[in-house]
Amino acid sequence: MTGVARAGTGTNQEAVRRHNLGTVLRYVHRTGSTSRASLTSQMALNRSTIGGLAATLEDLGLVRRSTPVASRAGAGRPSAGLEVVSRRAYVLAIDVGVDRVVVGRVGLGCDVEVRARVNLPPEPAPEHVAETIVGLVAAVRADASPESTLVGVGISVPGVVREADGMVVFAPNLGWHEVPFAALVRERLGLTVDHVIANDADLGARAEHVRGAGVAVDHLVYVSGDVGVGAGVITDGRPLGGAGGFAGEIGHMSFAPNGLRCHCGSRGCWETQVGAVAIARAIGAPADVVPTLDAVLDDFDGPPESLHEIAHHVGHGLANVINMLNPQVVVLGGYLASLHRLVEPEILAAVRSGVMSAAGGQVLVTRPTLGADTVLVGAAEAAFESLLADPAGVLSR
Amino acid sequence: MTGVARAGTGTNQEAVRRHNLGTVLRYVHRTGSTSRASLTSQMALNRSTIGGLAATLEDLGLVRRSTPVASRAGAGRPSAGLEVVSRRAYVLAIDVGVDRVVVGRVGLGCDVEVRARVNLPPEPAPEHVAETIVGLVAAVRADASPESTLVGVGISVPGVVREADGMVVFAPNLGWHEVPFAALVRERLGLTVDHVIANDADLGARAEHVRGAGVAVDHLVYVSGDVGVGAGVITDGRPLGGAGGFAGEIGHMSFAPNGLRCHCGSRGCWETQVGAVAIARAIGAPADVVPTLDAVLDDFDGPPESLHEIAHHVGHGLANVINMLNPQVVVLGGYLASLHRLVEPEILAAVRSGVMSAAGGQVLVTRPTLGADTVLVGAAEAAFESLLADPAGVLSR
Repeated sequence: MTGVARAGTGTNQEAVRRHNLGTVLRYVHRTGSTSRASLTSQMALNRSTIGGLAATLEDLGLVRRSTPVASRAGAGRPSAGLEVVSRRAYVLAIDVGVDRVVVGRVGLGCDVEVRARVNLPPEPAPEHVAETIVGLVAAVRADASPESTLVGVGISVPGVVREADGMVVFAPNLGWHEVPFAALVRERLGLTVDHVIANDADLGARAEHVRGAGVAVDHLVYVSGDVGVGAGVITDGRPLGGAGGFAGEIGHMSFAPNGLRCHCGSRGCWETQVGAVAIARAIGAPADVVPTLDAVLDDFDGPPESLHEIAHHVGHGLANVINMLNPQVVVLGGYLASLHRLVEPEILAAVRSGVMSAAGGQVLVTRPTLGADTVLVGAAEAAFESLLADPAGVLSR
Repeated sequence: MTGVARAGTGTNQEAVRRHNLGTVLRYVHRTGSTSRASLTSQMALNRSTIGGLAATLEDLGLVRRSTPVASRAGAGRPSAGLEVVSRRAYVLAIDVGVDRVVVGRVGLGCDVEVRARVNLPPEPAPEHVAETIVGLVAAVRADASPESTLVGVGISVPGVVREADGMVVFAPNLGWHEVPFAALVRERLGLTVDHVIANDADLGARAEHVRGAGVAVDHLVYVSGDVGVGAGVITDGRPLGGAGGFAGEIGHMSFAPNGLRCHCGSRGCWETQVGAVAIARAIGAPADVVPTLDAVLDDFDGPPESLHEIAHHVGHGLANVINMLNPQVVVLGGYLASLHRLVEPEILAAVRSGVMSAAGGQVLVTRPTLGADTVLVGAAEAAFESLLADPAGVLSR
């Protein structure tokens, strides 16, 4: 655990306490339950300070005592347990996909309590999507417990997002350019909590890092497959954003200068080889299944021959990503997870033939532990940030 | 400036003071000279604390008072100036290239006081290189001031390096596999200071970030061209290492599945298109000029027609790197700097045609500010780390 602050000159004691309260809550939020002894050792604060922080969080209703937990070594007195009260606070997680919107009500601890989903028409108007979200939000809030406080809204979009001002700079598969989508949603919802918006792959990486295939891993790449292909990257335990937050556009690695024209304007981008359109074409499926390619692939018992070349292209592109970033884990999300289920050995063979031995020796290529919820959970994690930064302050608003 | 620590419980005051002393020295080392007022505002410590730290560094002979410096606004009393005493401490910076070794004696503030260079035979034995280094070190130390203390050795190698144990895992253009080169050099030199070793591109990125084209930039890619091609990456102001420290192998982005066989075992790697061998072939130069391709390119008044296709390949690969990492600055080092001087417009055109507009809009593609010294300066910066972490401790050893 990092980020523990110590009381200093006295002028900033309140800030230090707020910070530490958030750090304890973050830990319980991540782990679901823990013991005071474990918190004491993780945070390097003394027992009474931890006890005081835990008591404050109990008073706020965010955690409760649980059965005492035996220490890891099995020796000594069992330590007082703490567990998250998921119904005390919740966020709205909004996953805008190319063909559908999913809205989840997600309780503290990232418990997805309820989901609602509506399909979208091709290239939907942002206003239409925002209106759709309003309806879904009403649906998922309908049976929320009256004691449960809404503390944030997190929005995922399959495109290039400028997080600072909530602008969707470019979402080619939605047909959006420079859409101030966070503001649009905030305006329609009329909610006063923080609204955050981010790229779907970045949120997928975050979710799998915190609660999925990348727990305890500091270097992870999440590759999203939702018609287009993008990546969210964690290096040294932190998201890789780049100068403008636009890093991870691996769908537009260009492999074939004389290849197919990509909607980005270039030729031969990876997306023209492994995007959903290319795969639908390869398996002879009609173009209108493109947005639901994951379901189509999941219906196959075994891989059709035509997917072998696709698998080769997937592995080839992943090898480039691995050579550049040297991750421990690569998680294939969306329809790429379905593809991985069918042609894992072929993908791995292509990865192996392309990676430098040093970087590629230990890399694990896998599917999301959180399954279809990965991006939704990532959006929820982002939405919980303000509560985790200042638990008492956010609840008193 | 980051990393300022505050005195806490009393038990760790000595550690805090050591840390702050190093932070002040690091600042003066980077800037060459500064004022106490500037240090006070940068470090958010009070005047008397800064004064005490500066006095200690003066006593150690590492800094001296200089002419008072007017405040930036021009108002108020001029503040006491501080400047680095470069001759008080020095490091040995060793730049092992594919065809030569350069050893520099580099004073505090990264003043390259003297360089010595010897050419290497093809695929030199590590022991031979280490012996060569011993001779060069003796040459550059011969006229070192007796008051100047050697505080570290920094070694750059064009290959994949495991920094933790000083192992050169793979340096294809030297023909090295699993060579414990840092230990080999340490043994031959018989010096008791810290020896650090790193990849040449990583050190180039570090040097240009601290003192070159990437000062005040948080996202930078340095592309090394020394027969092969690699990258050193800075993201969020910190080096991107990856799980094993092997990130940045962009020479082995594979573009053409049916392309030329690369020495890494793959086909169609970027290095087969833009490596020194490919360029020598394109301009009809004999193979034995490959290691000195920079000098050959520097002799051209204008670009031969044959370099236009190479420029296109360079820009195409850079676009992929930019799409993935979203840097503010890309620095082309080694023979790629010479190439850039000849065909900059063609490289830029290819970059522009391949980048996503969001990520590529603002990127600057340029040559190293530090010129041929970039990697040497990076090795020196790495070697100064132990002094900057504990100035008094290292000098008293």
